[in-house]
Amino acid sequence: MTDKKTATPLSDLGEFGLIERLTKPFGIKNSATVKGIGDDAAIIKSEGNDLVVTSDLLAEGIHFDLVYTPLAHLGYKAVMVNLSDVYAMGATPKQITVSLAVSSKFSVEALEQLYDGIRRACERYDVDLVGGDTTSSMTGMVISITAIGQVEPGKAFCRNGAKPGDLVCVSGDLGAAYAGLQILRREKDVYMIDPNTQPDLSKYDYVIERQLKPEARRDVIEAIRKSGLAPTAMIDVSDGLSSELLHICKQSGTGVKIYENKLPVDAQTEAVAAEINMDATMLAMNGGEDYELLFTIPAEQVEIAGKMQEISIIGQITDEPEVYTLIGRNAGSARISAQGWNAYGNGKG
Amino acid sequence: MTDKKTATPLSDLGEFGLIERLTKPFGIKNSATVKGIGDDAAIIKSEGNDLVVTSDLLAEGIHFDLVYTPLAHLGYKAVMVNLSDVYAMGATPKQITVSLAVSSKFSVEALEQLYDGIRRACERYDVDLVGGDTTSSMTGMVISITAIGQVEPGKAFCRNGAKPGDLVCVSGDLGAAYAGLQILRREKDVYMIDPNTQPDLSKYDYVIERQLKPEARRDVIEAIRKSGLAPTAMIDVSDGLSSELLHICKQSGTGVKIYENKLPVDAQTEAVAAEINMDATMLAMNGGEDYELLFTIPAEQVEIAGKMQEISIIGQITDEPEVYTLIGRNAGSARISAQGWNAYGNGKG
Repeated sequence: MTDKKTATPLSDLGEFGLIERLTKPFGIKNSATVKGIGDDAAIIKSEGNDLVVTSDLLAEGIHFDLVYTPLAHLGYKAVMVNLSDVYAMGATPKQITVSLAVSSKFSVEALEQLYDGIRRACERYDVDLVGGDTTSSMTGMVISITAIGQVEPGKAFCRNGAKPGDLVCVSGDLGAAYAGLQILRREKDVYMIDPNTQPDLSKYDYVIERQLKPEARRDVIEAIRKSGLAPTAMIDVSDGLSSELLHICKQSGTGVKIYENKLPVDAQTEAVAAEINMDATMLAMNGGEDYELLFTIPAEQVEIAGKMQEISIIGQITDEPEVYTLIGRNAGSARISAQGWNAYGNGKG
Repeated sequence: MTDKKTATPLSDLGEFGLIERLTKPFGIKNSATVKGIGDDAAIIKSEGNDLVVTSDLLAEGIHFDLVYTPLAHLGYKAVMVNLSDVYAMGATPKQITVSLAVSSKFSVEALEQLYDGIRRACERYDVDLVGGDTTSSMTGMVISITAIGQVEPGKAFCRNGAKPGDLVCVSGDLGAAYAGLQILRREKDVYMIDPNTQPDLSKYDYVIERQLKPEARRDVIEAIRKSGLAPTAMIDVSDGLSSELLHICKQSGTGVKIYENKLPVDAQTEAVAAEINMDATMLAMNGGEDYELLFTIPAEQVEIAGKMQEISIIGQITDEPEVYTLIGRNAGSARISAQGWNAYGNGKG
């Protein structure tokens, strides 16, 4: 889907020229950014806060397929994946570095599209691009981003603070990104057979957008801070709800029970699940790439949480370590195990 | 050169199991590291300092060749490349994140060797591994590292402070890493023809070590701070002396003259240059990967600099912007242009 109109080879610019061209449209928005791109390293002020640091890497053919992923969306998503981790700490993202390895099959214009998505993400979330590296690769594209955020000392939300009796909450809805991925893969298969096909994907718009252009939940963190809600543990849902629940429980030394009928699933996700013969609950529990926030709160805060539109209360932390239970819509219950994203072997990646 | 005795497939462990196994031997050494690996992000304290952040990416086939690069050395070097940038800001590195994309051709044991090198670098330079990402790639290996350091507010060494009349200094010696690369490539060619050959590389030990296992110049920064030397600009020599000189001059709005007979070149580098029919000065000016520190100082500090064994005074900053001159050992002079590492097109990589 790369624009073929103009295609300047990367070798025309060289490494420094390319970096200059790609990063020129970026400005500095944060007073915490003393020095951005252009030296051996960026200089940052902590302004009395603690800093949080997170890195994520996306590899072509593993995390994204350029047949159905517009490069601008990819750039946007690569930033979101990192910002989501910063918000899951209760912190405010301030800076990113972007390192890129690309083969010569990409043109300067293609990389400009990628950086356009990165820039839009930076502008929307008030984040400065302060460094990185751009180099060639033997095949394909690898994007590695590091995000740095700030949080008031002692106010970070960690994974290990859940207590028995705490309520389990999640923002937004679950499983849509995975449903979108299934639709995109199906359409790719159709396209491979008949490149002239013009699919109408409008009835899948929500799930496809959730897959291609997710948003980090800054709004949820802001709503939590405003409401007085005091999360005891928090994690973002990148590998699937089951996997993230187990992280919180293992690090907190607790068990958990989740109620199937409380899982937030969008109607479009349910429709796709039915269409592709998958269980919507499976999608919600194990789909991955939702970039929602999963967190626990003291039980006495149930009323505050109940009033917040952005979140659902889906279960409760228990005092039985390693007992993770999904209580079914009907009578039965099942053991929750991490079937989330596994980048090696039988993963969905 | 990977140890073939045991070869556990990556898929045996899965992503979380692999990360746990690889990062287990790492401890936390810095009081500035509040929380390391194991949450959505690491938490760092600035302890009243400014922070510096830098990211570098190494790609198989572009920046390293596993035929002659032991994985432990590769891990060590990947950290050094980043620490060198932190030291070039006059800062002290404190934390790194390591993101890795690897194909299934690598075993768990191979990655343990890589991380063993990373760990040795962290221990030697008192740096904490605080995060990252490990995922699969379609082909080969990409290592992306971000390093974070601390520097007293206002005390960072930037590229843009050189003034006409300032003396140009460089640490250590130049061109050795590139000489080592030429020897390794030659031996690889021989090996490809006759795998039973047992080359004696002992007379190339210094230049090969400079290529495979460089050290970041913490000692030089410490000596500079101790001596009272006040660098006006600084950069590390990664792409070659010429390229770095131009960065300082362009950002400072100055010219420069460099004296060929002052360039520090090791005897082994000179011997290799003669052996491979290359000009030792060309190696010193454009070799790259030296990871030495190039900096400028006020002319009145000439005596302090003269006493420091670690550094050579190689030239002077001039007031003629864009005039970059190499004054030859004999009468002539030449224009310095950046022929350093170019990851696209006709680069040496």
